[in-house]
Amino acid sequence: MTRDLLGIRQLSVDQIIDLLKRSDGYFQHLNSTDPFPESTLLKGRTVANLFFENSTRTRTSFELAEKRLGATSVSLSMQTSSLSKGESLIDTIKVIDAMKIDCMVVRHSSSGVPALLRRHLPETTRIINAGDGAHEHPTQALLDAATLLEKLGSLKGKKIVIIGDIKHSRVARSNMLLLNKLGANVSIIAPITLSPNSGAEVFGVNVRHEIGNELNDADAVIALRIQTERQAQSLFPGLTDFRERYGLTPTRMAKANSFILHPGPVNRSVELDDEAADSEKSVIYRQVKRGVAIRMAVLEWLFEN
Amino acid sequence: MTRDLLGIRQLSVDQIIDLLKRSDGYFQHLNSTDPFPESTLLKGRTVANLFFENSTRTRTSFELAEKRLGATSVSLSMQTSSLSKGESLIDTIKVIDAMKIDCMVVRHSSSGVPALLRRHLPETTRIINAGDGAHEHPTQALLDAATLLEKLGSLKGKKIVIIGDIKHSRVARSNMLLLNKLGANVSIIAPITLSPNSGAEVFGVNVRHEIGNELNDADAVIALRIQTERQAQSLFPGLTDFRERYGLTPTRMAKANSFILHPGPVNRSVELDDEAADSEKSVIYRQVKRGVAIRMAVLEWLFEN
Amino acid sequence: MTRDLLGIRQLSVDQIIDLLKRSDGYFQHLNSTDPFPESTLLKGRTVANLFFENSTRTRTSFELAEKRLGATSVSLSMQTSSLSKGESLIDTIKVIDAMKIDCMVVRHSSSGVPALLRRHLPETTRIINAGDGAHEHPTQALLDAATLLEKLGSLKGKKIVIIGDIKHSRVARSNMLLLNKLGANVSIIAPITLSPNSGAEVFGVNVRHEIGNELNDADAVIALRIQTERQAQSLFPGLTDFRERYGLTPTRMAKANSFILHPGPVNRSVELDDEAADSEKSVIYRQVKRGVAIRMAVLEWLFEN
Repeated sequence: MTRDLLGIRQLSVDQIIDLLKRSDGYFQHLNSTDPFPESTLLKGRTVANLFFENSTRTRTSFELAEKRLGATSVSLSMQTSSLSKGESLIDTIKVIDAMKIDCMVVRHSSSGVPALLRRHLPETTRIINAGDGAHEHPTQALLDAATLLEKLGSLKGKKIVIIGDIKHSRVARSNMLLLNKLGANVSIIAPITLSPNSGAEVFGVNVRHEIGNELNDADAVIALRIQTERQAQSLFPGLTDFRERYGLTPTRMAKANSFILHPGPVNRSVELDDEAADSEKSVIYRQVKRGVAIRMAVLEWLFEN
Repeated sequence: MTRDLLGIRQLSVDQIIDLLKRSDGYFQHLNSTDPFPESTLLKGRTVANLFFENSTRTRTSFELAEKRLGATSVSLSMQTSSLSKGESLIDTIKVIDAMKIDCMVVRHSSSGVPALLRRHLPETTRIINAGDGAHEHPTQALLDAATLLEKLGSLKGKKIVIIGDIKHSRVARSNMLLLNKLGANVSIIAPITLSPNSGAEVFGVNVRHEIGNELNDADAVIALRIQTERQAQSLFPGLTDFRERYGLTPTRMAKANSFILHPGPVNRSVELDDEAADSEKSVIYRQVKRGVAIRMAVLEWLFEN
Repeated sequence: MTRDLLGIRQLSVDQIIDLLKRSDGYFQHLNSTDPFPESTLLKGRTVANLFFENSTRTRTSFELAEKRLGATSVSLSMQTSSLSKGESLIDTIKVIDAMKIDCMVVRHSSSGVPALLRRHLPETTRIINAGDGAHEHPTQALLDAATLLEKLGSLKGKKIVIIGDIKHSRVARSNMLLLNKLGANVSIIAPITLSPNSGAEVFGVNVRHEIGNELNDADAVIALRIQTERQAQSLFPGLTDFRERYGLTPTRMAKANSFILHPGPVNRSVELDDEAADSEKSVIYRQVKRGVAIRMAVLEWLFEN
């Protein structure tokens, strides 16, 4: 049976640890200035990147992971595809699959699309969820965990604060699931209007609506990106107000000693002030490098069987 | 002398049979779940895909064919190219050619563009017509023939019905030429406003404007895509009306036992009802897979000399 | 220490001659109809093409140079990138760099962006300026020089006329610098409104505003592209007027025996009449072929250390 990466929910603790370990060797190569060693692991394999939502950085990260493993990599611009000619999503996907696609990397604005594809494609077509709606973004959670592990040694009992727009964030959701599985102590801080509806108790995390002393105790803080268009929806009063209440400002970080993560792209002077983004504790570029390594590890794992 | 694929019209029966045979080996590999075997046939060769009309699926099919044969494949976005800066088509093409392009795959909304390029480029630059205006789409006809041959064994005397917008369809034109050459018995069914002006007698086919018993006798039916924008041009009254008169509805297919082909993307509930598109006789995904194999065969053939 | 190609200004005469020589072998391969010989020079290296301004032809030229040297080549569509989500240029570039990019090819509408990146990226990330604002376009100047050398043998004392919109032209600027370094005798002819503000004396060239006898004596003339939108800015009265005063018309070229260069895309009947563009002395497609060879030479040189 072939494997998929639909979400963190489907992964066991052992599988997560296995994936994180596999990524370490790749990370060493990414950190070196030598040529990347040739790999033939995915030779003769085709990976298709289907981004229904634009994302230059994540798509490039996947493309590089694929090419560096020797795969044939194709990226289809799904905004200008046959979908705009009235074809259904499933028809489009089955057409692409018929060209012998061994793995599909899918990003879509609707939650559940990767699982929907799983039901309609042959099992020999592996599926990677590259972010679906407000549901999951498993490679982001894995790269965050890899970054945290490098800095903290272990996640067991470590205090991790996630701050910002939790409600609409697939990054938050995948991170809560993964951090819980690895035994971290997760708190979330979010405006009421940007908090999960169902209560985050399901994820076993604490929810607060104001920043108290959490940052001073935290081992790491993950600041989420604010979609500035939510302002127009009156979900928060404004960017200045958001920064004052939830931004990582110098005052707020003065007594903190936590590592700072952000999935990017950063709105400077909103989620992170320059002092936070550029501080010695900021690991935002480290996360990006870990991202390529994690995606290589995931591909290796999917093609192992 | 190097070869080109400008249209079905220029191919002899022997050449068509040769191309169909060459594609079979590639099709076996495409049907397998093993890694695609490495090929160095086009090593050191550059193939440029110049799509002046958007087509994610056809362009991807060519790209995969090229890469799987070891070519350097580049796809130029011709909508945002120098053409928009006022440069002439011939100048643009000669500039691209000067970068040492061994083969150009060209799609254009104007009939005759591939033949025009042939007159302006050195003969060592092979040209593949990937669809020009309402003229020809030779690789589509070849992939349709390969699909039909697999299902029907031979085309000699087989009854093939082509239904829909014949007038604007390069797919219909190339198919009529090819099916005639291989001895099939071709009928076309189209609204008067979507029938060829000059009479299809030139192609040696029967033309009808209403569906009678043809479907019940047919070995295969090729339903063509309706360009929904033709509605606004009053070429047909509406999609519902089109479906009622020309769509492959369950009632209409009840007594039929023919294979169902469609070049895609399908307008479901217009040309094909779900019962037709998803029936056991539907070979629409088979066509797509055959398409990659045919394009590999064409490239192999072009680079043989 | 690794190298960069930020501009012609930073190159010594010896370095320019070295680059021109290196490109000759590649040019021979580009001129042949044989498969391009395999190169592993950039195996395991990743080159990212970051075009903040659209340019299908220059981007394709770089992509082909990279792929033919065995590099992993990625082209990021910077118009739809995270920049549009409010991220700063430097943040975007550092994120891309973190994916282990060994070389960045950058085109930007603002002068100085490649130098800005140089200050923010690790020195192991080589930078190639593919055109920045009205500043420099060094690979264009190198390919022009390679073309001229092939035709003229040497540039020493050769009379080269550059004609057109000098003021806004990075091509003119890089060419003036390079031609001077190689000892050519450069004149520029431009409308007053399209002449360099600071006087071209800094470049050691003569400036005239009307065409006199220069063309009759010139060994080569480089006609620059007119940005037709400058018309709306009233920088010149109109295209017809421009052609009459500065275009290479048959009358004007009647007594001339100079080679004709143009960086493309050509506005026919503005900068060049058909008689000039298609004459035996026109080397505009030669320039394009030289361009791929020069870019291969530059990459070879950047990765030598």
